Amino acid sequence: VSEFDLINHFFKTAKVNRDDVLLGIGDDCAILSPPSGKALAVSTDTLISGVHFPESTCAQDVGYKSLAVNLSDLAAMGADPAWVSLAISLPEVNEAWLEKFMLGFNELATEHNVKLIGGDTTQGSLSITINVSGFIDPHRALKRSRAKPGDLIFVTGDIGDAGIGLYAILNDLISNQYIDFCMTRLNRPRPQVKAGKLLSDFRVAAIDISDGLLVDLQHICRASGTGAVINLDKIPVSDSLLQYYNNKPDWQAILNAGDDYELCFTCPENECDALFSVMTAEKIDITCIGNITDTGITQCLQNDKVVGIKPKGYNHF
Amino acid sequence: VSEFDLINHFFKTAKVNRDDVLLGIGDDCAILSPPSGKALAVSTDTLISGVHFPESTCAQDVGYKSLAVNLSDLAAMGADPAWVSLAISLPEVNEAWLEKFMLGFNELATEHNVKLIGGDTTQGSLSITINVSGFIDPHRALKRSRAKPGDLIFVTGDIGDAGIGLYAILNDLISNQYIDFCMTRLNRPRPQVKAGKLLSDFRVAAIDISDGLLVDLQHICRASGTGAVINLDKIPVSDSLLQYYNNKPDWQAILNAGDDYELCFTCPENECDALFSVMTAEKIDITCIGNITDTGITQCLQNDKVVGIKPKGYNHF
Repeated sequence: VSEFDLINHFFKTAKVNRDDVLLGIGDDCAILSPPSGKALAVSTDTLISGVHFPESTCAQDVGYKSLAVNLSDLAAMGADPAWVSLAISLPEVNEAWLEKFMLGFNELATEHNVKLIGGDTTQGSLSITINVSGFIDPHRALKRSRAKPGDLIFVTGDIGDAGIGLYAILNDLISNQYIDFCMTRLNRPRPQVKAGKLLSDFRVAAIDISDGLLVDLQHICRASGTGAVINLDKIPVSDSLLQYYNNKPDWQAILNAGDDYELCFTCPENECDALFSVMTAEKIDITCIGNITDTGITQCLQNDKVVGIKPKGYNHF
Repeated sequence: VSEFDLINHFFKTAKVNRDDVLLGIGDDCAILSPPSGKALAVSTDTLISGVHFPESTCAQDVGYKSLAVNLSDLAAMGADPAWVSLAISLPEVNEAWLEKFMLGFNELATEHNVKLIGGDTTQGSLSITINVSGFIDPHRALKRSRAKPGDLIFVTGDIGDAGIGLYAILNDLISNQYIDFCMTRLNRPRPQVKAGKLLSDFRVAAIDISDGLLVDLQHICRASGTGAVINLDKIPVSDSLLQYYNNKPDWQAILNAGDDYELCFTCPENECDALFSVMTAEKIDITCIGNITDTGITQCLQNDKVVGIKPKGYNHF
C-alpha cells in the first residue's frame, strides 16, 4: 500500500450526507440511488496547475475552484448537484496542502449539498479531474441548441473581472481593493446553480462563461444554427473593472476573458417579464446584452455602430 | 479555441449507441436516463504514464487498459457497465497517438456496450482519468464487507502473469512465446464483468486484483472483520508463468504482483456447488484457494506449513 493510498482519509473530511448515497468511498465502487423520474446531468473537467490556474494559487482556492468549474457545468444545464468524484495527481504527498485543498473543496460542496462519492490519488504533476452528477428533468435541460432568432441574450452578474485577476497575478500587479476583488473572482468563481435551476422553467439555451463571452456565445449560436448581436454598452461590468480600466473598458479583453463562470443564456422575448420577476425575487442579477439573429457571426455594436472584436477564447497561459 | 478542443472529435469515433443516453458529448453536460429500480455503481481511476503503465506502452494498449481497469471496478461490484467519461492530459496534440488510443478504448467499450458520454483533453504530462457507471441491484452488490468466517476464497483465471509482463518490459527481457503472453496480460487485462454479474446471485464479497492478491484479499478481510488462510499449492497459475519460473513459482512475487484484474471473492460453502455450476456453464474458470477465518492476518500454507510471505502490494515503479 503506497503512501498515496493513505491520504484517502482526506476525502472523508466532508460533512455532507445524502440518503441517495447507499455506499460511499472505500469499496470498488460507490453505490448511488438516482431519484425516479429524473435524468442525470454529468460533466467532467480537468484542471492543470500552470494551465487552468496559476501555479501560485493557494491549495484552498484550488480545491474551491476545481469543484466550482464543474458545478458551473451543471448550472449551465439547469441541474441540481448531487454527487462528485475527485481524482488528484500530486508530485508528492503533502498533507498540509491536501488538508487545505479539501477545506476549499468542502466549503463549496457543503454549500451545494454535493457528496464526494469517489476519490483517487496518484503521483504525478499537479492536476485535478472532477466528475459531477446532478438531477434534471430532461425536457427542461438548458441545451445550447434551444436558441431561436428573436430570443434575447442575457448574462448573470458581471463580466471580465476574472481576466483582470489573472493578469494581475501573472504580472505581479500591486495589490489594492479592486485588484483583490478581481483575484477573488478568478480564484473563487461562484457557480450559478440557483440561476440555472430557475432558468429551467423557461425555454432557455445556456452556457457557462469559461472561455470568454464571445466564444461561449458562439457555441450556443453554432448548436442552434443562429447568429447574434450584442451591445457593448449593455455588458454589465463591476466597479472594480471600471476602476482598473479608468472607465474605458477594453472590450477586446473583456469579451475574451474566461473564468468568470457567469451564465450566458437566451430567452424568448415573451417570457422575459416572467423571467425578470423570478430572478428579482431571488436577488439574481441578469442583464440583457443583445439578441439572437438568423445567421452569421456574432456582431458587437457600440453606439449603434459595428465594432470589430475577434473571438479569441480563453488564452491558456 | 485551443487545438486541444479540436481533438474532441476523436471522442466521437465510438460505435456504441444506448437509448439511455439522452444527450451525449457536446454540451455542458451529458444527460442520462438511469433504469428505474436500479442503483448506479460508480468508480473513478487515474492512470499515469510511468506509474501505472510503462512509458513505452503503445497508445492502443493505453486506451484499452485505461478502460479495462475501470470496468474491472464495476466487475468487482457485480455491476452492468453503461457509461464512461474520459479525461486525457497530453504533452502535445498528437493525432496519430490519439487515434490509436481511441482504437484500443473503443474495442473494449464496444465489447461491453459502454457509451462514452463526456470527455476533456488538456495539456499536461500523459495521464488518463476515467469515470465509469454501471447498473446494479443494491442488495446484490459484491461489497467487500460481506465475507464471513467459514466462507471459501476463490479467484477467477490465473494469477501473476501481469507481474512477469511488467518485469520483462522494465528489464528488456528477450521476447518469446510465454513472455509475450504475460505482456499481453499486463497491457490488455480482461475485466471480469460477466463473472461479477453472475456472482451477484450469491452472498459474495469481491475485489479485483489490482495491487496483488495478498493486499487485495486483506481489503476484504479488513472490511469484513475477518482473517484468511490461503494454500499456495492451489493458486492457479498459467503454463507461461511456470515456464518463466522453471516450475518453481516465486510466491512472494506472484502474490504481490498487481495488474492481473482477476477477481478475488468469497462464497459461503453451501452455495459453492451452485456457484460452480453457473461458472462452468459460462466457461469461467474459478479456483478455490483458501477460506475465511475469524480474525488475524492472511496466512499462507504450503504443504500444510505456514510460509512467511509479506503483503507488499503493487510496487509503483
